[in-house]
Amino acid sequence: MASTGVLRPGHVALRVLDLAAAIEHYTKVLGLIETARDPAGKRVFLKGWDEHDHHSVVLREADESGMDFLGWKVDGPATLKALAADVEASGLATECAWIPAGDLPETGERFRFTIPTGHVMELYAEKTVIGNGCGTDGPDVNPNPWPDGLVGIAAVRFDHCLLYGDDLDGTVKLFRDVLGFGLAEQVMAGPNHDFMIGAFLSCSNKAHDVAFIRQPVKGKIHHASFLLNSWEQVLRAGDILSRTHTSIDIGPTRHGITRGETIYFFDPSGNRNEVFSGGYTYYPDKPTITWTEAELGPAIFYHDRKLNEAFLSVFT
Amino acid sequence: MASTGVLRPGHVALRVLDLAAAIEHYTKVLGLIETARDPAGKRVFLKGWDEHDHHSVVLREADESGMDFLGWKVDGPATLKALAADVEASGLATECAWIPAGDLPETGERFRFTIPTGHVMELYAEKTVIGNGCGTDGPDVNPNPWPDGLVGIAAVRFDHCLLYGDDLDGTVKLFRDVLGFGLAEQVMAGPNHDFMIGAFLSCSNKAHDVAFIRQPVKGKIHHASFLLNSWEQVLRAGDILSRTHTSIDIGPTRHGITRGETIYFFDPSGNRNEVFSGGYTYYPDKPTITWTEAELGPAIFYHDRKLNEAFLSVFT
Amino acid sequence: MASTGVLRPGHVALRVLDLAAAIEHYTKVLGLIETARDPAGKRVFLKGWDEHDHHSVVLREADESGMDFLGWKVDGPATLKALAADVEASGLATECAWIPAGDLPETGERFRFTIPTGHVMELYAEKTVIGNGCGTDGPDVNPNPWPDGLVGIAAVRFDHCLLYGDDLDGTVKLFRDVLGFGLAEQVMAGPNHDFMIGAFLSCSNKAHDVAFIRQPVKGKIHHASFLLNSWEQVLRAGDILSRTHTSIDIGPTRHGITRGETIYFFDPSGNRNEVFSGGYTYYPDKPTITWTEAELGPAIFYHDRKLNEAFLSVFT
Amino acid sequence: MASTGVLRPGHVALRVLDLAAAIEHYTKVLGLIETARDPAGKRVFLKGWDEHDHHSVVLREADESGMDFLGWKVDGPATLKALAADVEASGLATECAWIPAGDLPETGERFRFTIPTGHVMELYAEKTVIGNGCGTDGPDVNPNPWPDGLVGIAAVRFDHCLLYGDDLDGTVKLFRDVLGFGLAEQVMAGPNHDFMIGAFLSCSNKAHDVAFIRQPVKGKIHHASFLLNSWEQVLRAGDILSRTHTSIDIGPTRHGITRGETIYFFDPSGNRNEVFSGGYTYYPDKPTITWTEAELGPAIFYHDRKLNEAFLSVFT
Repeated sequence: MASTGVLRPGHVALRVLDLAAAIEHYTKVLGLIETARDPAGKRVFLKGWDEHDHHSVVLREADESGMDFLGWKVDGPATLKALAADVEASGLATECAWIPAGDLPETGERFRFTIPTGHVMELYAEKTVIGNGCGTDGPDVNPNPWPDGLVGIAAVRFDHCLLYGDDLDGTVKLFRDVLGFGLAEQVMAGPNHDFMIGAFLSCSNKAHDVAFIRQPVKGKIHHASFLLNSWEQVLRAGDILSRTHTSIDIGPTRHGITRGETIYFFDPSGNRNEVFSGGYTYYPDKPTITWTEAELGPAIFYHDRKLNEAFLSVFT
Repeated sequence: MASTGVLRPGHVALRVLDLAAAIEHYTKVLGLIETARDPAGKRVFLKGWDEHDHHSVVLREADESGMDFLGWKVDGPATLKALAADVEASGLATECAWIPAGDLPETGERFRFTIPTGHVMELYAEKTVIGNGCGTDGPDVNPNPWPDGLVGIAAVRFDHCLLYGDDLDGTVKLFRDVLGFGLAEQVMAGPNHDFMIGAFLSCSNKAHDVAFIRQPVKGKIHHASFLLNSWEQVLRAGDILSRTHTSIDIGPTRHGITRGETIYFFDPSGNRNEVFSGGYTYYPDKPTITWTEAELGPAIFYHDRKLNEAFLSVFT
Repeated sequence: MASTGVLRPGHVALRVLDLAAAIEHYTKVLGLIETARDPAGKRVFLKGWDEHDHHSVVLREADESGMDFLGWKVDGPATLKALAADVEASGLATECAWIPAGDLPETGERFRFTIPTGHVMELYAEKTVIGNGCGTDGPDVNPNPWPDGLVGIAAVRFDHCLLYGDDLDGTVKLFRDVLGFGLAEQVMAGPNHDFMIGAFLSCSNKAHDVAFIRQPVKGKIHHASFLLNSWEQVLRAGDILSRTHTSIDIGPTRHGITRGETIYFFDPSGNRNEVFSGGYTYYPDKPTITWTEAELGPAIFYHDRKLNEAFLSVFT
Repeated sequence: MASTGVLRPGHVALRVLDLAAAIEHYTKVLGLIETARDPAGKRVFLKGWDEHDHHSVVLREADESGMDFLGWKVDGPATLKALAADVEASGLATECAWIPAGDLPETGERFRFTIPTGHVMELYAEKTVIGNGCGTDGPDVNPNPWPDGLVGIAAVRFDHCLLYGDDLDGTVKLFRDVLGFGLAEQVMAGPNHDFMIGAFLSCSNKAHDVAFIRQPVKGKIHHASFLLNSWEQVLRAGDILSRTHTSIDIGPTRHGITRGETIYFFDPSGNRNEVFSGGYTYYPDKPTITWTEAELGPAIFYHDRKLNEAFLSVFT
């Protein structure tokens, strides 16, 4: 199926228990750049240094950590309208609603809906471009390859989320048939390898833009992931996490799925973050990679070849 | 403009003066995998290890080196027909023709046309998938991150070409308006920076899938480029090029344009090759980066900040 | 104390349960080069590609895995005689004996002794230089930076051992006062941090040439370690270990002690191997680094900041 | 020959034309740390972050750039006295003199002499240890692998100098026979490869601590070199040099000699600097590597396989 115009996961909204601690973590450790704060100080907006849109991460203080919603940038208002109609018509989404422009700062109207695994998704077409600070003679003129003043891990971009939920079939059907995603990789259980327990979906040339693991829960997030440019930056991330006494879950290591070079860690509210590098170039004509349940260990953690205890049990 | 369904540069056909020497270079030094040879032995077909389609490089013995054609894989037969019609209707292409399936082995019919800079381009929708050899329980089942038996530089994929030609405006118009490419970066000359002399065009999330430099020639190629996965692999490539006494043009270094970490070298026929790593994630909503002519030096070779003599004068 | 002329750990002799399986592991996975085999086939001799002496690893089939002895190359016969006399005179060593030249192939006479932790050590001054295969016009003329034909992990050199034993004080005294090693790093327990439980000793500019952990055992080995040239090669090692289903203990990760970038794994007999890169330049005038017992976690595994269960319990 | 107790090149004193510009370069671009300044402001003292002694670089404003002297730390006062006597007795040095303690801040007395190539060398045994800032519970207790607050290229250590001079034979004799250095690599000219034109000398496990090229000059410096920890840091150095418009001579590339991964650039006074990573572990029993003059190109710049014009003609 050809592209339907979904560009990328453009923002993730995370709930945190202590906003000040979260800001410290996301700006000083992960090294995102704060671009705005709600007048009331209830929400903070951030971006990776190489993202051009106004923000890609929203932090909101709440009593329970987790993900409020994941927003997808589409390639224009016409696509937004068409996809919203398709989602509604599909019968696969619930609680469809339009959020007016400005609810997120510098962001146009968003179409919000809940997918079968219980996660709130959004589509939107407009967000103010503020640039990446590399231009030396204007915002996008004669740039350096990276800007001055990077902090901490200096995550390059928000990249994807791995989400946990129950109705994996419905969610995958929605992403593939309605939103036009490709199924880059799948984990299949059962004696005939015909029961999907994991799906890694791409709307781009990345190995995944979002992934889902079948778990008997609704709307849970395993991790929000941020891009780094090299395996050496993953090591450096590990060093920074250790020196700041940030809780590391696992890594540095390699994923079998997507080949990513990764480290998992937790924000102060217990939301799992990932920074990773590597992967491969995905195209929609590339055959889906299948992992059998027996090989779930190397699929997730290629070196250890087995899951750590936290992988299936710790999420928010 | 939304995607029109062009996936990637799927094959490049290069003319070489001595086929045996070329095979040695492309398989033993660059490390491509030979997948087929014409019965008459006049053409050889190769691919990078992480490409799944049957071939991405065609070598043909001829009296003059250079590029025969560059072929673009599209996302299906309907797209192929539609784009072919659009190209013909645009009036920007000449010598439009359909090549029947099988002319290239394991490849469907191709729509061929000549663009204003004199290069022969092709669109095609079908090529046999032969896989990348990573699967351990089937072609795409439980893969390792890379296959056994890699040779030489072990180029991952054919990535893009940089082409030289005169009517840059016409070619850019064709790629942007008809084929739906984004203009990731441009080099602008003239006192008002309004005369385009370089265009870096993307149909994907790569910083470029093809690039053109305005030069008073027709149909020339500056280099065919292949992907590596890290800057350390670029160093290793340089070591292999030196030990095999392969002529290096420049590098390892970084491009300002696209940020690529690169080394340029020549095949035995004088065709320039590149292997590179890095770059950034491109999206069609990303503002075009502009390089002014005064900054052409760092644009091309970011460290040296000036062109080497060969950059503008040596091409095939 | 100035150098006494001990150059490096020149060979380690390991006992393996199945010699054929061990050869497969050490040559195909770790990528050492077999240089000789006993006529009776009971011992096999190997070296890392960038070692010049005839061998650095001896494998001997036995009923129990572990280390037979660790041999130290000294800078000449006079040094050998002087150090042997010093060791005997020190009263710190037992079972002192001379092994005649030729007992190890291409190796001169060795002075053997048992240190207070129960490990058998040797000093020797002569071993045939066979080179590293990089020279292009003779063994050491116009070399390439690395040779053709490297296999598997392609360990560069045998680097050091970490040993477990009880009388740490005696062994450290012998290495420091008699053999002239520097104490690069130490782990100190007790309320006043005055009870040494780990010692990392250097006779070179490496952060360690041998290390000891106080454990209530005699003559045990925690791991034999081999050098790699980069963190990316550590990743590649992890990939090769996984694809060959070699049992990985932990890593890739960083040590706090020595800063090494590391991965631990097991040979088929349960002997632990390490490959690592990085570290720092040690000099004898550099102050000893002290790790307090409370920080033993990050000292050993800097990212996880805690020992894994195997670290203290699994050795041979 | 066994070690005579020379530890390392402990400081290099460079003349600069504009002290303020030099400080900017050495602290903000190269990223050394200023540790002291003369009361009169005529000399500035700096160190790399991972050096423990008070300083390793001295900058002095003068009318002509170049090197004032290169100082060697030895392993104690007795060694200092003995080596000073040996140097004087050798007849190979001229202008021998003792400089009293305190002439360089935090530094003991130095024995100064001029070698046959016209360079001023010093031996000294004492310099205040100020540490590397990694300790978290004291100067050398429970350290992180690298300190906070690194700036620019963040050179790890001053590593070596390459010097130009005429009487290469005399200087090499002095370093080998009197100071006990090993000849790691040599470049040999003449039909029988018996006329030495380059010598790379080591007093450690580094591939070189100082190098000399035969040129018809006295006391000239080709470059002062600083260590980085990886090839990726060499790339990052290149990026920083470009963005700060620091003049790059050549690189990133690899040296054939020593295998170093390198970039050369100039300080504002025209003194050439190098930052590099890699190399190999040198031991005094390792055979000397010989480069023949015909292979001088790859010996110096392994990728380009030829010298650039500046290599022989530009020095200070």
